[in-house]
Amino acid sequence: MDSVLRQSKAMCPFMRKATAAGLRAMSTTTTSVIAHSPGGGTMSKLQVLARRCPVMGKAMAVQSARMRHAAGFPAAAAMSTFSGHAKTPKAKLHTSRPQEAQAVDAPVYTPREKVPLPPHIPVKKQHIGVTAAATGRPTTTQDATPATKFDYEAFYTHELEKKHKDKSYRYFNNINRLAKEFPRAHMATKEEKVTVWCANDYLGMGRNPQVLKAMHETLDEYGAGAGGTRNISGHNKHAVELEHTIARLHAKEAALVFSSCYVANDATLATLGSKMPDCVILSDSLNHASMIQGIRHSGARKIIFKHNDVQDLEEKLASLPLHVPKIIAFESVYSMCGSIGPIEEICDLAEKYGAITFLDEVHAVGMYGPHGAGVAEHLDYEAHLQGRPRGTIMDRVDIITGTLGKAYGCVGGYIAGSGKLVDTVRSLAPGFIFTTSLPPAVMAGARTAIEYQMQHQGDRRLQQLHTRAVKEALNARDIPVIPNPSHIVPILVGNAELAKQASDKLLHDHGIYVQSINYPTVPVGQERLRVTPTPGHTKEFRDELVAAIDTIWTELGIKRTSDWAADGGFIGVGVPGAAPEEPLWTDEQLGIAETARSLLQAAEAEQKEAATASATPAAIGITERILEREMQGLRSTAVAA
Amino acid sequence: MDSVLRQSKAMCPFMRKATAAGLRAMSTTTTSVIAHSPGGGTMSKLQVLARRCPVMGKAMAVQSARMRHAAGFPAAAAMSTFSGHAKTPKAKLHTSRPQEAQAVDAPVYTPREKVPLPPHIPVKKQHIGVTAAATGRPTTTQDATPATKFDYEAFYTHELEKKHKDKSYRYFNNINRLAKEFPRAHMATKEEKVTVWCANDYLGMGRNPQVLKAMHETLDEYGAGAGGTRNISGHNKHAVELEHTIARLHAKEAALVFSSCYVANDATLATLGSKMPDCVILSDSLNHASMIQGIRHSGARKIIFKHNDVQDLEEKLASLPLHVPKIIAFESVYSMCGSIGPIEEICDLAEKYGAITFLDEVHAVGMYGPHGAGVAEHLDYEAHLQGRPRGTIMDRVDIITGTLGKAYGCVGGYIAGSGKLVDTVRSLAPGFIFTTSLPPAVMAGARTAIEYQMQHQGDRRLQQLHTRAVKEALNARDIPVIPNPSHIVPILVGNAELAKQASDKLLHDHGIYVQSINYPTVPVGQERLRVTPTPGHTKEFRDELVAAIDTIWTELGIKRTSDWAADGGFIGVGVPGAAPEEPLWTDEQLGIAETARSLLQAAEAEQKEAATASATPAAIGITERILEREMQGLRSTAVAA
Repeated sequence: MDSVLRQSKAMCPFMRKATAAGLRAMSTTTTSVIAHSPGGGTMSKLQVLARRCPVMGKAMAVQSARMRHAAGFPAAAAMSTFSGHAKTPKAKLHTSRPQEAQAVDAPVYTPREKVPLPPHIPVKKQHIGVTAAATGRPTTTQDATPATKFDYEAFYTHELEKKHKDKSYRYFNNINRLAKEFPRAHMATKEEKVTVWCANDYLGMGRNPQVLKAMHETLDEYGAGAGGTRNISGHNKHAVELEHTIARLHAKEAALVFSSCYVANDATLATLGSKMPDCVILSDSLNHASMIQGIRHSGARKIIFKHNDVQDLEEKLASLPLHVPKIIAFESVYSMCGSIGPIEEICDLAEKYGAITFLDEVHAVGMYGPHGAGVAEHLDYEAHLQGRPRGTIMDRVDIITGTLGKAYGCVGGYIAGSGKLVDTVRSLAPGFIFTTSLPPAVMAGARTAIEYQMQHQGDRRLQQLHTRAVKEALNARDIPVIPNPSHIVPILVGNAELAKQASDKLLHDHGIYVQSINYPTVPVGQERLRVTPTPGHTKEFRDELVAAIDTIWTELGIKRTSDWAADGGFIGVGVPGAAPEEPLWTDEQLGIAETARSLLQAAEAEQKEAATASATPAAIGITERILEREMQGLRSTAVAA
Repeated sequence: MDSVLRQSKAMCPFMRKATAAGLRAMSTTTTSVIAHSPGGGTMSKLQVLARRCPVMGKAMAVQSARMRHAAGFPAAAAMSTFSGHAKTPKAKLHTSRPQEAQAVDAPVYTPREKVPLPPHIPVKKQHIGVTAAATGRPTTTQDATPATKFDYEAFYTHELEKKHKDKSYRYFNNINRLAKEFPRAHMATKEEKVTVWCANDYLGMGRNPQVLKAMHETLDEYGAGAGGTRNISGHNKHAVELEHTIARLHAKEAALVFSSCYVANDATLATLGSKMPDCVILSDSLNHASMIQGIRHSGARKIIFKHNDVQDLEEKLASLPLHVPKIIAFESVYSMCGSIGPIEEICDLAEKYGAITFLDEVHAVGMYGPHGAGVAEHLDYEAHLQGRPRGTIMDRVDIITGTLGKAYGCVGGYIAGSGKLVDTVRSLAPGFIFTTSLPPAVMAGARTAIEYQMQHQGDRRLQQLHTRAVKEALNARDIPVIPNPSHIVPILVGNAELAKQASDKLLHDHGIYVQSINYPTVPVGQERLRVTPTPGHTKEFRDELVAAIDTIWTELGIKRTSDWAADGGFIGVGVPGAAPEEPLWTDEQLGIAETARSLLQAAEAEQKEAATASATPAAIGITERILEREMQGLRSTAVAA
């Protein structure tokens, strides 16, 4: 090793300056370079640097081609090999590809580094996926550059086979949610009715009469589509009013509406990250695909911090010069596990290290806070209830993004922030500029939904009560709910095949639709069913769901909480001695009276003893009584409002 | 120079292999590397390679930082400097930044190359945009790395000032298109009525009673939003039926719907370009921003060919190995100039060189062909009219993309192609997978619009007749229409300030809304008004428009066709001896009788003599008579259908 290093140092100006410790560090750091690796693998920093070297880069390309030749279509594994150049130390520089899945941060497609080789530098390539030319001339496999065309259909077939093989191929279920029978839907035919337990129309706003009325009226008056981009005839009072309402919701100076929040996140991060000189984006490891893409598209340096780990984030912030622009990108509610981001602590760090905060509230808007502005609002519940947003956590967040397509029941996404930030994105982001505006009726419906939810607490409180009841009922049956403080009910299965089977059985045997969540949306081994209660999921639906899951867990022999506990626990399930997750919506905020709560506590104790009992334990009855009382109260509130 | 080269060769393994001719070629080729350059400039291939060199890369970074320090915020010009490393020849390798605008291909934001420098390599930076830290500690401007935070608001202000300065800052007009008074709209208040002459609701389908009926019914039955991604409860019969209809429209095996065609183009090109090994994407120089972004996001090698230049494309295809996968990305109707892509010739080349074709028919679907499938269908008009799509040009195109938001009057975009291609994009594209589906009512409305237009020729024929009439009337008044064979009426102004003034005057003095089109949508110096007639723009509206433009051209002293001709002509306007552009819709296809046509020809001759006459020439009267007769005929056709 030492002699190889000495040789390298003699030849290569980079190696001459490098220290052994530096090389080791570079060869084991992979986080910020994921975008450079095709096929979803990772590369070390050293490999990335090596690819930029005119000598090493070529050697690596040749090696990769050899590997691909051996392996069929290019596999990610091929790229993590680092050898073939005698002048450079080899063994110690290997980086093995992590065997575990990359969760949401595993890129579904991974752009390769741009390598604009001059056309006449011959690169020897393998022939896989190549068939005989249209001329019918047989393929001569000995040719260095074969006179055959690329077989596109074979390539598609190969890609699809890979998806089938790793069980990540998606089969879509035909689900037609019925406005008048919420949360029921019909499948391909109107006769096949099912109950939907996994939609993101969390509050049932998609069938809210006021929303529908606004949409009908707008359709009649202003027609189906906007007719243009925002700049060319697609800007109208619906856009103006919607953006005004959103800005008011988040107590920000301005807001901007996009086709979706995927586009909002992608366009905003790509624009800011590419425009701000030497910008660094710090990204939570469980961030949504839209943020991952936006960061990649920005070309900015990306540093991933451990999920919700403020200490890890601080270490990474501290390693950067103070004057460099930094964006901390994270979420309030992480939709697949229901965890909640430490917003206040991240705002503190942002202030300390001169960063701005980019908070995705997609799964929280409409759902948290006295006006439904999200988790950031919820954290200063009383201040916002009293109309004093200044100095609150929400006030400190620089950029909030949200959706109109989940709790607000429509479609579209947005950002909210300072007037100048919003104007800058409006002026520079191609994903905003060069696309047709949302239809006037959609914008009018979304605005109505936001304003309705700013004035009514009932739906989101009832949603939270239903969430508590579902979690309690599942826990009572030893069904493994991944603990979290939010409205998401993730039920751990831990196997792709079993998760799909459970979902299929729920649908076909029980008329219940809960989509299975597999890789790459969650890591391999963490496959789950993701249940999302709504105000419409009353006791009868809940009883059906819990009984059906219980049956299927037995039929398929899926691990229960006690099984996970026997293995020492897994991602929060069955972890011995773990403190229970307190829900973000407190009993007080939900208006649960002191007496009811004490009854509940007594029942919980009782429930623990009867944890494995097959009959519905007493606790459910009490929660139900609270729920019933709450529903009556909420109904009268809504009427009075 | 020679001694520098010799020195470099002794040191650098890359230089040792390089020839002087090779270096020269690399230093002057810029087309395929545009994505590497921040701020919208271009870089030579040599610069890109140099940035990948551990020695040169650092030297360039330092130099860039110095340049920025001198120039304020980083300017594109700073990046095209190439110096600071004594071992490399300097003077000859300079690449000057092209002074002319980059038309549609000028990136609005340009991701920088990912340079994941290890955090402890200090990079000296300038302090601009930096204010005192929150601690109140004064800025010490002598520090190498100042203990000050980046000033984000100052950065936004600076970016916005740049837009104001180069007149590319956009002021949105509040335009509320009225379904019952098409093509009229009101502005901020209902009293301020205007006529819209620049929407992309080309056929008025946004107010089509059948479309609105389908949307109302779907809203009532299925609610406002889809409630989830396609995989999680957002797949429904509306999506199935819409995609089935689109596939049938284009006579393809399958189709896939996206939030918009911006997303469809971006996601499809990014996915295919990144997944196909060593893929090269050949892109027309006037391609839409969505394709430019998709290609950039793919990380694939990009080669730009001259607009509609088949010879240039062939040369570029011929330079690539046959077995390498290649995508030729182009449009049928280029929306800002109205030119039409040579689809058949490009299909021929694709076959010859083993490429696939990616055809954006966004401005053509609904508008061309007997069923409104676009220009590709139009080119085999009779075959498609008779229901024989096999072997036609449309059949040969591999991927067709289109929009539901322009001629179909709704919102959304799509791709159509082989079953496996579509399934591959469905399975791999994050921009499709991780976003909420379009609302059921939007999908139902779009499907109704497509099917209506598959059955009715009336709207698009009337649209074409109105287009002819507008072009004739403008030409008769010496107003400079950029000639083209399509339905787009681009009126050349040639100055950003004047174009905005003309647009403002039309709106405020004449109640006519035509947005001015400035850089970066069109190149600097080619600013224009873009007029889009519809079936609803009858004689009275046309007379108003033409008279108003004539008045404003005089008031503002904007150049007329004869003025451009006196200067030798410009982008088709006033070019001496230029053959007239034949419209794609022939007289026969429009159903104009032989007698009427001969009248028209006689009138045209007459018109040429009276080219500068201020009175409406006789030709208009004849076109008007044809139009009136056609409208009667079309109305009865529509009723019969």
